[in-house]
Amino acid sequence: MSAPKKVVLAYSGGLDTSIILKWLQTEYGCEVVTFTADLGQGEELEPARAKAELLGIKSENIYIEDVREEFVRDFVFPMFRANTLYEGLYLLGTSIARPLISKRLVEIAKETGADAVAHGATGKGNDQVRFELSAYALNPEIQVIAPWREWDLTSRTKLIEFAEAHQIPIAKDKRGEAPFSVDANLLHTSSEGKALEDPAAEAPEYVYQRTVSPEEAPNEPEFIEVTFEKGDAVAINGEAMSPATILTKLNELGGKHGIGRLDFVENRFVGMKSRGIYETPGGTVLLEAHRGIEQITLDAGAGHLKDSIMPRYAELIYNGFWFSPEREMLQALIDKSQENVTGTVRLKLYKGSATTVGRWSDYSLYSEKHVTFEEDAGAYDQKDAAGFIRLNALRLKLIATRNRRVAEKG
Amino acid sequence: MSAPKKVVLAYSGGLDTSIILKWLQTEYGCEVVTFTADLGQGEELEPARAKAELLGIKSENIYIEDVREEFVRDFVFPMFRANTLYEGLYLLGTSIARPLISKRLVEIAKETGADAVAHGATGKGNDQVRFELSAYALNPEIQVIAPWREWDLTSRTKLIEFAEAHQIPIAKDKRGEAPFSVDANLLHTSSEGKALEDPAAEAPEYVYQRTVSPEEAPNEPEFIEVTFEKGDAVAINGEAMSPATILTKLNELGGKHGIGRLDFVENRFVGMKSRGIYETPGGTVLLEAHRGIEQITLDAGAGHLKDSIMPRYAELIYNGFWFSPEREMLQALIDKSQENVTGTVRLKLYKGSATTVGRWSDYSLYSEKHVTFEEDAGAYDQKDAAGFIRLNALRLKLIATRNRRVAEKG
Amino acid sequence: MSAPKKVVLAYSGGLDTSIILKWLQTEYGCEVVTFTADLGQGEELEPARAKAELLGIKSENIYIEDVREEFVRDFVFPMFRANTLYEGLYLLGTSIARPLISKRLVEIAKETGADAVAHGATGKGNDQVRFELSAYALNPEIQVIAPWREWDLTSRTKLIEFAEAHQIPIAKDKRGEAPFSVDANLLHTSSEGKALEDPAAEAPEYVYQRTVSPEEAPNEPEFIEVTFEKGDAVAINGEAMSPATILTKLNELGGKHGIGRLDFVENRFVGMKSRGIYETPGGTVLLEAHRGIEQITLDAGAGHLKDSIMPRYAELIYNGFWFSPEREMLQALIDKSQENVTGTVRLKLYKGSATTVGRWSDYSLYSEKHVTFEEDAGAYDQKDAAGFIRLNALRLKLIATRNRRVAEKG
Amino acid sequence: MSAPKKVVLAYSGGLDTSIILKWLQTEYGCEVVTFTADLGQGEELEPARAKAELLGIKSENIYIEDVREEFVRDFVFPMFRANTLYEGLYLLGTSIARPLISKRLVEIAKETGADAVAHGATGKGNDQVRFELSAYALNPEIQVIAPWREWDLTSRTKLIEFAEAHQIPIAKDKRGEAPFSVDANLLHTSSEGKALEDPAAEAPEYVYQRTVSPEEAPNEPEFIEVTFEKGDAVAINGEAMSPATILTKLNELGGKHGIGRLDFVENRFVGMKSRGIYETPGGTVLLEAHRGIEQITLDAGAGHLKDSIMPRYAELIYNGFWFSPEREMLQALIDKSQENVTGTVRLKLYKGSATTVGRWSDYSLYSEKHVTFEEDAGAYDQKDAAGFIRLNALRLKLIATRNRRVAEKG
Repeated sequence: MSAPKKVVLAYSGGLDTSIILKWLQTEYGCEVVTFTADLGQGEELEPARAKAELLGIKSENIYIEDVREEFVRDFVFPMFRANTLYEGLYLLGTSIARPLISKRLVEIAKETGADAVAHGATGKGNDQVRFELSAYALNPEIQVIAPWREWDLTSRTKLIEFAEAHQIPIAKDKRGEAPFSVDANLLHTSSEGKALEDPAAEAPEYVYQRTVSPEEAPNEPEFIEVTFEKGDAVAINGEAMSPATILTKLNELGGKHGIGRLDFVENRFVGMKSRGIYETPGGTVLLEAHRGIEQITLDAGAGHLKDSIMPRYAELIYNGFWFSPEREMLQALIDKSQENVTGTVRLKLYKGSATTVGRWSDYSLYSEKHVTFEEDAGAYDQKDAAGFIRLNALRLKLIATRNRRVAEKG
Repeated sequence: MSAPKKVVLAYSGGLDTSIILKWLQTEYGCEVVTFTADLGQGEELEPARAKAELLGIKSENIYIEDVREEFVRDFVFPMFRANTLYEGLYLLGTSIARPLISKRLVEIAKETGADAVAHGATGKGNDQVRFELSAYALNPEIQVIAPWREWDLTSRTKLIEFAEAHQIPIAKDKRGEAPFSVDANLLHTSSEGKALEDPAAEAPEYVYQRTVSPEEAPNEPEFIEVTFEKGDAVAINGEAMSPATILTKLNELGGKHGIGRLDFVENRFVGMKSRGIYETPGGTVLLEAHRGIEQITLDAGAGHLKDSIMPRYAELIYNGFWFSPEREMLQALIDKSQENVTGTVRLKLYKGSATTVGRWSDYSLYSEKHVTFEEDAGAYDQKDAAGFIRLNALRLKLIATRNRRVAEKG
Repeated sequence: MSAPKKVVLAYSGGLDTSIILKWLQTEYGCEVVTFTADLGQGEELEPARAKAELLGIKSENIYIEDVREEFVRDFVFPMFRANTLYEGLYLLGTSIARPLISKRLVEIAKETGADAVAHGATGKGNDQVRFELSAYALNPEIQVIAPWREWDLTSRTKLIEFAEAHQIPIAKDKRGEAPFSVDANLLHTSSEGKALEDPAAEAPEYVYQRTVSPEEAPNEPEFIEVTFEKGDAVAINGEAMSPATILTKLNELGGKHGIGRLDFVENRFVGMKSRGIYETPGGTVLLEAHRGIEQITLDAGAGHLKDSIMPRYAELIYNGFWFSPEREMLQALIDKSQENVTGTVRLKLYKGSATTVGRWSDYSLYSEKHVTFEEDAGAYDQKDAAGFIRLNALRLKLIATRNRRVAEKG
Repeated sequence: MSAPKKVVLAYSGGLDTSIILKWLQTEYGCEVVTFTADLGQGEELEPARAKAELLGIKSENIYIEDVREEFVRDFVFPMFRANTLYEGLYLLGTSIARPLISKRLVEIAKETGADAVAHGATGKGNDQVRFELSAYALNPEIQVIAPWREWDLTSRTKLIEFAEAHQIPIAKDKRGEAPFSVDANLLHTSSEGKALEDPAAEAPEYVYQRTVSPEEAPNEPEFIEVTFEKGDAVAINGEAMSPATILTKLNELGGKHGIGRLDFVENRFVGMKSRGIYETPGGTVLLEAHRGIEQITLDAGAGHLKDSIMPRYAELIYNGFWFSPEREMLQALIDKSQENVTGTVRLKLYKGSATTVGRWSDYSLYSEKHVTFEEDAGAYDQKDAAGFIRLNALRLKLIATRNRRVAEKG
């Protein structure tokens, strides 16, 4: 691997990525292009521009973009079509954002003639994998620089020294170590590390950043209606909205009602377990709603097939294989299933829970005529069930007969 | 099929199964044996004895049994080892009880020399399938009689007329139609039909029978600790209990906090959709706790494999294939995974939610030494991740290179 | 179910379907439309027209069609994209033809205003299921008549009597029972029943109809090249051909070399086992070739995912669910994988075997540069493997450490 | 990682592992223990002892063992219970031997107080992964040394120079490069690399080492009978034999008839494709026979479940995860299925093919009474099929009705 000449850095404007920026300049003597994305993390982006300029980045090398709509439309929503949960519980809020960042890094590298990209993820986590697999899948020639795996700035003290030595501004509250590490975007906020490393100890309330505690949530439930078209949410309470607007609105509703908190110990792709505190208010509501609408619009064949491949799909996203043939194959399967997932779900939001209380659709497969306990006017002939059961039982009977025969023989 | 001479009937003591009892006597002229099981449905069993005697059943033909421990130990707990959910949400409370009933029906048939068994399930539902597949799997020669599929008592009026004509006592509140149909056992209560047939309409509060509404639940959370051994709950708050006692206690706790309600539209095995209201208070707590302990005791290989086969396992139980080779094969896989699922989970119960807030175990795979953000004393070499990622990326790079080559040619 | 007024019958022109034709007329007094398809079964179709006319069918009610191209293009080829084998060995030659026949029956019913379709499959087999599931999926209002499940012509004698009574011509060799039952189309010939019912006894040579025995095959191998585009065969030995022409040619080649015989005991969907003798000469060659081209054009992610869903896909086709959401979802997944399955395979055909001996493609992912035992000029850094292995091993080490710790304590 | 003090080396006695032996001594100054296993590779082991002694290994540090029975009984047979094929075709002959070697290396390390093990696999292949994952899973503290990833002996010339410099005897035919690389054990022989690296070019006949070409095989077929108990072969032609004896005998039979050759391009775990020529004569016969006996002893539920997890099981073995929780879980599932896989299969061996021509068993589920085309005396009621089909069709009808309704609405 030759030394990179021009590097596109995923740049937040914070202290750590500022140190990386400077380190790239000094270590490799390379030109740095910064990419700062608004993924809905709730921070102003313009300060990142000022900071980048201060650190000597040419203005044509500063990319600041609002990618929230693309994020929700092309990443979050496709994932929610599968009712995706990693290890039964986790909504993959961090995982799903990484491929989009890598995609833009690689695209900007092409635009600017850069030969490398760089990210601020450590060598212990999943994010490095996600960033790099995506980058390599999109450009097999690209170099990826992961400073945390390379440098010797292995303590807070060394980092601060490096920052001071290179005139990187240090906010007062950044001198000490943060009590835990935070990642946020429009889908979720995750907190992990340090104060949260003991999985036996309850996470303190101050960890939570975008949801009130269920105890602090309103004492009255709130009812909302979410409308779907082909598997994607398109309206709340009858008002059509763009993907990012819908997720923003659901976050607001979910957060207010203390919905979407998760204290979770998960298996990282790199082989160790970690504990995270996740807040996914809008996503939690959206998952419940999507399941509600699928209940009446998907038949058993489609629904069960989707369910059976979901764990693998979730694993692929978690492990960083968004841009892989197998994820795209599974997506083709999932998207095929969503053609009639259109209709409206009514949900009750109350003190930490989002629960479906009603659902209706022009595409409904629910047939009151068939299921009714009342007279069904011949819609269903109960005698059919006898043959259905007898043929389903036939192989079980043959087994039992065999077992009996063998047992008698001894 | 020759006419049955002696039939073992799953008998609740209620009006419907009393009518069936009498109908069997009159239609087939056969001797009837009654089997009434305490599965934790919360009803006295002795009245069933009196009722059976009144209807002419010989006392040696009346079987009344408390099978709660067997139910939880041999059916509910094995199922929970898999974190089983049907269609993403349903804890299978009805499904899991049917094989046990069939097993006892077939065993009693053998003891009493009966050549048939009978049940009170209708021809539209899943329970007929579950009863009958289990019965045939356990005795391939047994006859199964399903009066609802055979007789012409197709309206409430005709049933009442039949009851009156045969001196079957009719409780006053049973003359009219119930507003919905209820099934209950130690794991859950289900309500469906009639008043609940419109899946768009919220189920009224009076439907719920063993959980308070979240709004009525205590304003203070309650914390409990559930201890597991090899995947099964064995103690609550440090107090060892039998399986049925544990589930009873969890039901009490869950019910008090409004936990475990589900408004659900599901796909029946017989091909139609139905809407049910389920209450599974203890089971919902148990599932959350079991997931919590698996988080630290199962590695990714075991956990993901379990997750991937769970939907199929759930489908088998739902469809009535408990006594089938494939369910037993999956059970062997699941049980193998539970050998080290031992430890304790701390849960918060509050207004409809049970959430894990801590877990610990002598069998924990969580390694703070590896995951820590702090100096890890060489437990983990971050440079390993570079090779890990590069080899995981290799095939993606080869694909990208191929695609680029083809595009350039094309 | 009201009596049908007009029925479209899948009509072969043979004795059995002629009896059905007449039985429909006499039993239901209904108008009959005949549909006779050339699926490559190797029989003249025009005699069926004469026979139908003789039995009183109006000429506008006689449909005779060559559907071979549609059969191969829209049914056989999509199935082969998945390397489909039922129960590890069977190429589904009968199963895949049924949905096409049902599709045309339903379409002709619409064109002719018929309210029912009829087929000649018995009540013991899979074909009835396949015909009827397809028909119902394409027209939920259609009636399906399966005379073999309804009538009392339950012996050869009764059938012959009925034929004689209704002036149905009986070929001399049809008076007695055939020694076994045969089904054929462009993909395969199956033989089953009667003389073949003992699965311990080797099938006699005279059963085989379109393959020579390996012993009788040429003593010299023959080499051929099959070219694929997007997963479908498009040329043999460089000569472009239509789908049906390719399969015809492969049949000729395979049959000549004794390829594609299978003596098989399978699990029918209706619950029993049956034994069949299958001959799929061209299909066997095609499967081998398709695997050969996938070997260099599919990566592990795509290939392994395909492999993992194939058994389910095969089961769906075998069981008659071609026209189902889940088959279509799986097809979407499979088709997505085939976008680059383009290239050529060289095969050796010799005395019962078709084996790949070479393959090449512009879309190849095989990289001699990477795999070479020789100096690779930096294409691959062997040191990467160390990190790759260490992180893959991490969870296994954590398990071993846990087990050791527990054992020491215990 | 501290320098190893004592290393157990997987030692063949050949030039390459002799160089490794000496390199370990000189590079690390460590004591070397050699382990040479008879896995049925067909080479004398005693020369390895002499060679090791010559290279200065103390006699108590030389382990030479015949592990053929353990190999077949505990590794090959369990794998064959699953009808395991990697990527549809490969019988995993190399993969399945590696865990056994690692197991003995780790055990000998414990016995001899060694702190490391070493192997001669390169950094490009799968074998390094298999050796090391197994070693780490069995002893999380063990060091693994892979000289090919570490040293600078990167050309044949350097290797020979090193050997000469260290008085390692060099057989004349080892001075030049072998035209391809060979691995062999009782299950198979693999050949790959160099002369075989072009996947378009047919492998020359001289590559094959333990099978005659089909053209050279006898002109008369040979018939044999293989008997199974609980899924494992126990006798050939009625003669009971030990596992390794059976496989040896099947190899002889298969090899004589040109059975079990495979020209294959596979996906390595490390991300690249490679081409191998495999000869698995006995294994190919065994797989065919095992399938034959399963055809009559497994029902559809068991068989289809096995089929559906097989690709994952194969992938685990191929990737080196034999000693992993998930492989053991899948094994539990598979073994559960084999309880009644007992009986005898008759096979025809002829010019490259092994085909089942008959099978019988006391445990057979095949019921001629049910399947017969003749009068079945009420074993099966064809009318049951009508209900069976109608209920299987119900959801398809509901979908079709929905689609029609939606289409009409427009």
